Amino acid sequence: MNRSEITELIKQARIKRQLSWAQLAEIVGKSKEWTTAALLGQMTLTAEQAQAVGEALGLPEEAVAGLQVVPYKGSLPTEVPTDPLIYRFYELVNVYGTTFKELIHEEFGDGIMSAIDFKMDLEREADPAGDRVRIVMSGKFLPYKSY
Amino acid sequence: MNRSEITELIKQARIKRQLSWAQLAEIVGKSKEWTTAALLGQMTLTAEQAQAVGEALGLPEEAVAGLQVVPYKGSLPTEVPTDPLIYRFYELVNVYGTTFKELIHEEFGDGIMSAIDFKMDLEREADPAGDRVRIVMSGKFLPYKSY
Amino acid sequence: MNRSEITELIKQARIKRQLSWAQLAEIVGKSKEWTTAALLGQMTLTAEQAQAVGEALGLPEEAVAGLQVVPYKGSLPTEVPTDPLIYRFYELVNVYGTTFKELIHEEFGDGIMSAIDFKMDLEREADPAGDRVRIVMSGKFLPYKSY
Amino acid sequence: MNRSEITELIKQARIKRQLSWAQLAEIVGKSKEWTTAALLGQMTLTAEQAQAVGEALGLPEEAVAGLQVVPYKGSLPTEVPTDPLIYRFYELVNVYGTTFKELIHEEFGDGIMSAIDFKMDLEREADPAGDRVRIVMSGKFLPYKSY
Amino acid sequence: MNRSEITELIKQARIKRQLSWAQLAEIVGKSKEWTTAALLGQMTLTAEQAQAVGEALGLPEEAVAGLQVVPYKGSLPTEVPTDPLIYRFYELVNVYGTTFKELIHEEFGDGIMSAIDFKMDLEREADPAGDRVRIVMSGKFLPYKSY
Amino acid sequence: MNRSEITELIKQARIKRQLSWAQLAEIVGKSKEWTTAALLGQMTLTAEQAQAVGEALGLPEEAVAGLQVVPYKGSLPTEVPTDPLIYRFYELVNVYGTTFKELIHEEFGDGIMSAIDFKMDLEREADPAGDRVRIVMSGKFLPYKSY
Amino acid sequence: MNRSEITELIKQARIKRQLSWAQLAEIVGKSKEWTTAALLGQMTLTAEQAQAVGEALGLPEEAVAGLQVVPYKGSLPTEVPTDPLIYRFYELVNVYGTTFKELIHEEFGDGIMSAIDFKMDLEREADPAGDRVRIVMSGKFLPYKSY
Amino acid sequence: MNRSEITELIKQARIKRQLSWAQLAEIVGKSKEWTTAALLGQMTLTAEQAQAVGEALGLPEEAVAGLQVVPYKGSLPTEVPTDPLIYRFYELVNVYGTTFKELIHEEFGDGIMSAIDFKMDLEREADPAGDRVRIVMSGKFLPYKSY
Amino acid sequence: MNRSEITELIKQARIKRQLSWAQLAEIVGKSKEWTTAALLGQMTLTAEQAQAVGEALGLPEEAVAGLQVVPYKGSLPTEVPTDPLIYRFYELVNVYGTTFKELIHEEFGDGIMSAIDFKMDLEREADPAGDRVRIVMSGKFLPYKSY
Amino acid sequence: MNRSEITELIKQARIKRQLSWAQLAEIVGKSKEWTTAALLGQMTLTAEQAQAVGEALGLPEEAVAGLQVVPYKGSLPTEVPTDPLIYRFYELVNVYGTTFKELIHEEFGDGIMSAIDFKMDLEREADPAGDRVRIVMSGKFLPYKSY
Repeated sequence: MNRSEITELIKQARIKRQLSWAQLAEIVGKSKEWTTAALLGQMTLTAEQAQAVGEALGLPEEAVAGLQVVPYKGSLPTEVPTDPLIYRFYELVNVYGTTFKELIHEEFGDGIMSAIDFKMDLEREADPAGDRVRIVMSGKFLPYKSY
Repeated sequence: MNRSEITELIKQARIKRQLSWAQLAEIVGKSKEWTTAALLGQMTLTAEQAQAVGEALGLPEEAVAGLQVVPYKGSLPTEVPTDPLIYRFYELVNVYGTTFKELIHEEFGDGIMSAIDFKMDLEREADPAGDRVRIVMSGKFLPYKSY
Repeated sequence: MNRSEITELIKQARIKRQLSWAQLAEIVGKSKEWTTAALLGQMTLTAEQAQAVGEALGLPEEAVAGLQVVPYKGSLPTEVPTDPLIYRFYELVNVYGTTFKELIHEEFGDGIMSAIDFKMDLEREADPAGDRVRIVMSGKFLPYKSY
Repeated sequence: MNRSEITELIKQARIKRQLSWAQLAEIVGKSKEWTTAALLGQMTLTAEQAQAVGEALGLPEEAVAGLQVVPYKGSLPTEVPTDPLIYRFYELVNVYGTTFKELIHEEFGDGIMSAIDFKMDLEREADPAGDRVRIVMSGKFLPYKSY
Repeated sequence: MNRSEITELIKQARIKRQLSWAQLAEIVGKSKEWTTAALLGQMTLTAEQAQAVGEALGLPEEAVAGLQVVPYKGSLPTEVPTDPLIYRFYELVNVYGTTFKELIHEEFGDGIMSAIDFKMDLEREADPAGDRVRIVMSGKFLPYKSY
Repeated sequence: MNRSEITELIKQARIKRQLSWAQLAEIVGKSKEWTTAALLGQMTLTAEQAQAVGEALGLPEEAVAGLQVVPYKGSLPTEVPTDPLIYRFYELVNVYGTTFKELIHEEFGDGIMSAIDFKMDLEREADPAGDRVRIVMSGKFLPYKSY
Repeated sequence: MNRSEITELIKQARIKRQLSWAQLAEIVGKSKEWTTAALLGQMTLTAEQAQAVGEALGLPEEAVAGLQVVPYKGSLPTEVPTDPLIYRFYELVNVYGTTFKELIHEEFGDGIMSAIDFKMDLEREADPAGDRVRIVMSGKFLPYKSY
Repeated sequence: MNRSEITELIKQARIKRQLSWAQLAEIVGKSKEWTTAALLGQMTLTAEQAQAVGEALGLPEEAVAGLQVVPYKGSLPTEVPTDPLIYRFYELVNVYGTTFKELIHEEFGDGIMSAIDFKMDLEREADPAGDRVRIVMSGKFLPYKSY
Repeated sequence: MNRSEITELIKQARIKRQLSWAQLAEIVGKSKEWTTAALLGQMTLTAEQAQAVGEALGLPEEAVAGLQVVPYKGSLPTEVPTDPLIYRFYELVNVYGTTFKELIHEEFGDGIMSAIDFKMDLEREADPAGDRVRIVMSGKFLPYKSY
Repeated sequence: MNRSEITELIKQARIKRQLSWAQLAEIVGKSKEWTTAALLGQMTLTAEQAQAVGEALGLPEEAVAGLQVVPYKGSLPTEVPTDPLIYRFYELVNVYGTTFKELIHEEFGDGIMSAIDFKMDLEREADPAGDRVRIVMSGKFLPYKSY
C-alpha cells in the first residue's frame, strides 16, 4: 500500500464517515491547512497523529504506518493543473511571478521566500459584494550569500 | 514597440533613475503590488497613470501609449519557472494545490477563488528567528451554479 | 471508487439502459449541458440529483455519494485533444483566441469572460445547406481592477 | 515582411489612429469577428478589403499585398495559453470537451462541428447582476460516413 | 469494457481465428480501410455491422454494444509516433506540410481538405524495382468564408 | 543567408512577381509537388534548377548557391501543427495511423512505406457535392529482414 | 496478452532458465542483435522461430502466436531515455547528428541511411587501456529523387 | 560572436570556397568525423588546428579564438530530430535501445559504452543491391562499481 | 515481478522490519549511498548481496533473483522532479550547471566528470546555525580526445 | 542591455583578456565557484565587486550596473540539458535522486537541503588511475514543521 493509495483511502473514508478537514485537524491537533496537506500525502505525521487519524477514519495498520513515512511530494497530475480552482493559483504565479520577485528583492535583497519554513492560513472573508477567500502566507526569507 | 519591449525599457530606466517599485507605486497612486505587476506588463494603466510613470522614467510617447493597451498576460518564459524565488511559489501550488481545493470547497462549496477580482499585499514580517515574507491574498469566491 | 471510475460506470449504464443525456437531464431537473458535464465528472450534484440519477442508472450507493463530492476537473487526457470533434474547439481557441481577447477588451475593458459564472446551450440549427451546431455561451464579464 | 510583422504593424497603427475593431470591420465591410481575426493574421483578405484597411491604417504596399496571402494560422504562442482571458476558453474546452462530444453525437451521430464552415457573434448581454459576454457559435455539422 | 479494451479483444480474436482485415471488411460490407479503422476504435459501427463482426470474432455482447458507441478518437500513444511505419507518415506531414498548404491554397483558395468527409484506398503497386504502397486520399475541400 | 531566409525570400518574391507554384515547377522542370517542397526548403536543387528559379524570382547568387545545399528538413514550427489545413493531415495520421500499419503489414509483411523513395500527386477532383482534394501517394515498400 | 506482456514474460523466463541472448540467438538461428531486438518486442518472428524460442523458454501458446504478429515498435518509455547506457546513444545522436548528416551527404548526396534495410554487429574490442564496445552499423543509402 | 554564429560562418565559407569536410579534415590533420563535429560546434580545437582552418576558410580572428573555447554541446534544435537523416539515428536508438543495453550488459556486466572516450568511422560500403553507409563506433566500456 | 515492483516491496518491508538504510548497507557490506541506490532499483547486486538483503527483508526468491539483473535506471517519474528535496538538486544543476562546466574545463580541458566511475558520501555537518547536509562527490575526469 | 547580454559580453571579454575564472574570483574576492556563477548571470554582485570585475574585463558602465541587479536565475536552455558535462549532473539527480531523499530523511527527518544557504567547492583530486573531479556541497538542512 503506497502513499497515493493511502490518500485515496482517506478521501473515501472521510466522506463515508462525514468528517470535515477541520474536524480531522482537531483530531490531529494541528491547523486545518497542515493537516489537510498531510492527509493528502504531502507531509509526514508523527506516530500519535497517525494513530489518531487512523482511528477516526478506520484505517488499516499498514496505512497508519505509511502516514509516518516521508512522502514523495507533489499533488498535481500535470505540470499545468487542469482543475479550475487550482489553475487560478498557477495563473497567479504566472501573472504575478515577476512581481513577487521584484518586491521581495526590493525589500530583502537577493534570496527567496522559503516554501519549507512556511505556514499558511485560509479563511472566509465576509464581503457584502460576495464573500472572499483570504489566504495569509508566511515564509522565512532566505538570503543568497556570497562565499 | 510591443509590450515586452516597454517592460524591458522600464526595468532599465528604473535602475538608471534609482526609483524603487514603492516610489513608482506612489507616483501611479496605487499599491506597490498592482503597480509592479502593471509595469511588468501584466495590467493596464489609465492615461494619467501612464503619463505619470512615463514622466518619472522618461519613457517615449509610444511606450506611454502602449501601457494603456491591455497586455497579453503571463510573465514567465517556461511552464515550470526556473528562477528559485518564483519556483517556490510554483512548488506551493504543487504541494498545497489539492489542499487549497479541499479547504475552499469545504468552506464554500464547488467554485473557485477568483484570480481577477483579486488583490494582494506583500510585506516584511519581523521575526527574531529571521524575518519572514508575509503575503495576504484576497480573491472573491465564485460559485459554480447548475443551470 | 474514484470519480473517473464513476464516470465510466455511468457511461456504460447509460448505454445498457438506453437513456439519452436529454432524458438524464430531465431526471436530474437541469439542462442537458450542465447535466452531461456533471455526469462526466466535471460538476457536483446535490443529494437529490445524485439519488435520482443513481436510481435511473442503477448505480451503487458509493457512486451516488461520489457524485456529491467536488471533482478534480478537466476531461481531456492530453493538453492538445486528439479527438477530432473536441480538437475543433481547441482550434477555435487557437485561431480566434486573440480575436476573443481584442473584442472583449474593446467592449468591456481589461478583464475576462468567466468560465465559472457561465452557462451554455447547444442545439441543432436547421439549414438547407446542411444542419448546423449552434452553441450559445454566456459568461459574466469580470473586470480587472487596480488596487 | 512576413504576416506576423504585418499583424504587429496593424496593432500599432490601430492604436495610433484610434480606430476600433468595429470601425475597421465597417471599413472592410464584414463582421467585427471575422475582420478582427483576419487583421490578427488568421484569415485572408480580398484585394479590395486589403486596400481599404491599408488606407485606413496607412499600411505600406507590401503589407497590403501580404494580407491577401493565406496565412499560417494559429494565434497562440504556447499550447496552453497563459493569458487569463484566452485561458478561460481553453478551460471551457477542457471542462466541457467531453460534453460537447456527447451532446453533438446524441443529436447528430458521429461527426464534428466544422471550425471552417463556421461563424460567430460576440456581444454584450446586459444583466443587473453584472453584464455578460454572449457568444453565439454556428458551425456546420459534418458527418463521418462509412465507405 | 471500454473501447480500447474492445480493440485489444478484436486484435487477439482476429489472430486466433486467422481472419484478415480484408475478410473482416467483407463481413462488415465496407472497404478494408474504413473497417480496419472502425475495428481499431476510430469509427462507429451500425448495429448490423457490429453484430456481424461480433459473430465472426466471437465477441461478447458488451463489445458488440460498445462498437456502436462513438469512440474518443486518436490511435497513437504519443504526439510523435515511435513506430517506424507510422512515423514515416508523420514525417511526410512534417516535410510536405507546407507544400500541401501552398498547393491546396493555389488550387482552391483559403480552406482545408476535410479529414471527415474523407475516404482513402491503400493498395499494392507492382514495380520491378520493388513493389510500392499506393494510397489514394480524397477529402472534400472546405473553404473559409468571410461573414 | 541560411536556408530559412532563402525560403522567406522565395515566398515574398513569388508574390511580387505573381508566379504560381505550377509555373515555378515548369521553370524547374519537375512536378509542382516536388518543386514546391524544394523551394520551401525541403529538397535539394541541381545547379541548373537553382539557376532557373533564381532568374525567375530574381534571387541573389548566395540564395542560388544555398538552394543546392542539402537542407535540414522539417517544415513545421511545432510538433503538433496549429494551422488547420496542415493539422488535418496530422489528424489523419492520428486517426488512421494504426490502420495504415495493419493494412500495409497485411499486404506486405513487416516493413514500412518509404518516405524517401516516395512521390505524390495532388489535384482537384470535380464533384457535384463540392470539389475534392485528391492526393495520390506512392512509396516503395521496404521490408525488415532478419539477419 | 499483448506484446509488452510477452516481452516481460521472456525477460523473466530467460533469467529463470539462465539462457543468454547469444544462446537464444542460436536457438532462433539468427544474429544475437536481431534476435534480442525481436524478443524485446521490436521485430517479427516466423512460426518456426517463435516455436523454437517458445520451447526454450516455456512460453504459452498465446505468446508464441503473439511473437509472429508485427509489433508496435519503439522500446523506450520516454522521448529522452533516462537509462545511462541508452542515453549515451541518444547523446551521440545529439552531438554527432549534424556530423552524420554532413558526411553522408558529402559522400552520397541528399538522402538517408535506412534504418529498415539495416543490420548491426556489437562486440567486445580488447584494449590494454580498457576493453571497448565496438558496433558496426550498415544501412542502405536511400537517395531522395526529384520527380 | 558566439559559437553557433561561428558554425554558421563556417558552413557558408565552406560552400563558397568549395571545400569538402574531408579536405578540411586534412587541413586540421584529424579524421573527417572528428573534424566535422568540431567545426559544427561540438569539439574544441587546438590553436594550430583553429589557425589552419581559419586560414583555409578565411575566418576572422574572433572566430579562430572561439574555436578554441569548449562549446556548449548538442547539435539538434529539438528533442526528437525532424530531419529524416538524423531521425533515422534516433529511431535506431528507440528500436534498438534495449537491445544495446541487454547485449552490452551480457558481455560486460553493468556499465555503459562511453560517449566521450569514443571514436567513429563512417564510410561507403559498395553493394550491388545499392551502396550502404557503414559506421564503426568504438567506445570504452565503463563499469559501474559498488563502493 | 519487475524491478519497480521489487523496489516497492523493499520499501514496504524495510518499514515493517524497522531497518534503516545504514543497517541494510552493513548487511550488504557496502556504503549506505551505493546500497540505497541499489535497493531503489538503480544498481546491480551480486548473488551474495542479494541473498543477504533478501534474508534481512524476507524477500521472495524471485525478488532476490531480480536484484541481480541490471535495471533500467532513472528513479524519477517526471523530467523536472516535483518533490521539493529532489527538486533542490535539479535547481543546483540549473543554477550552477554552466559553472560546473566552466570550472571543470578550466581545470581539466574539454571532457566530463564521469557519472559511472563515480562515488559519493552524504553526511551530517554539525553547525551552530543549524546542521547542514554535506555531500562529497568524486567522479573520474574523462577527456574528449581528437582522433 | 539585459543580463544574458552581459553574460555573453563577459564570456567574450574573459577570453580576449585571457583571464581565468580563478583570477576573476581573486579580483572579486570570493570563491571561484560563487564568482563564476555570479558572472554567468546567477548571482548578484555588490557595487565594489561589479566595479572590480568591470575594470578587469573592460565592461561598459551599463553592464557594471546590471551585475548589481538580482537576475532571473536558471542557466540552461532546455529542461534536460544537452551538453554532456552538464547532463552527467542531471543524470546523477535522476539516478541518485531517491537515494538523496531517503538518506537525508533517515538522518534529518522530513525536510530538504537548502539550495540557497548553500556553498560548494570543486577541485582536482589526483588519482593514479586518472585524476578525478571532487565536489563538496554543503547546504543547510531545513525541516518541515507542522503548524
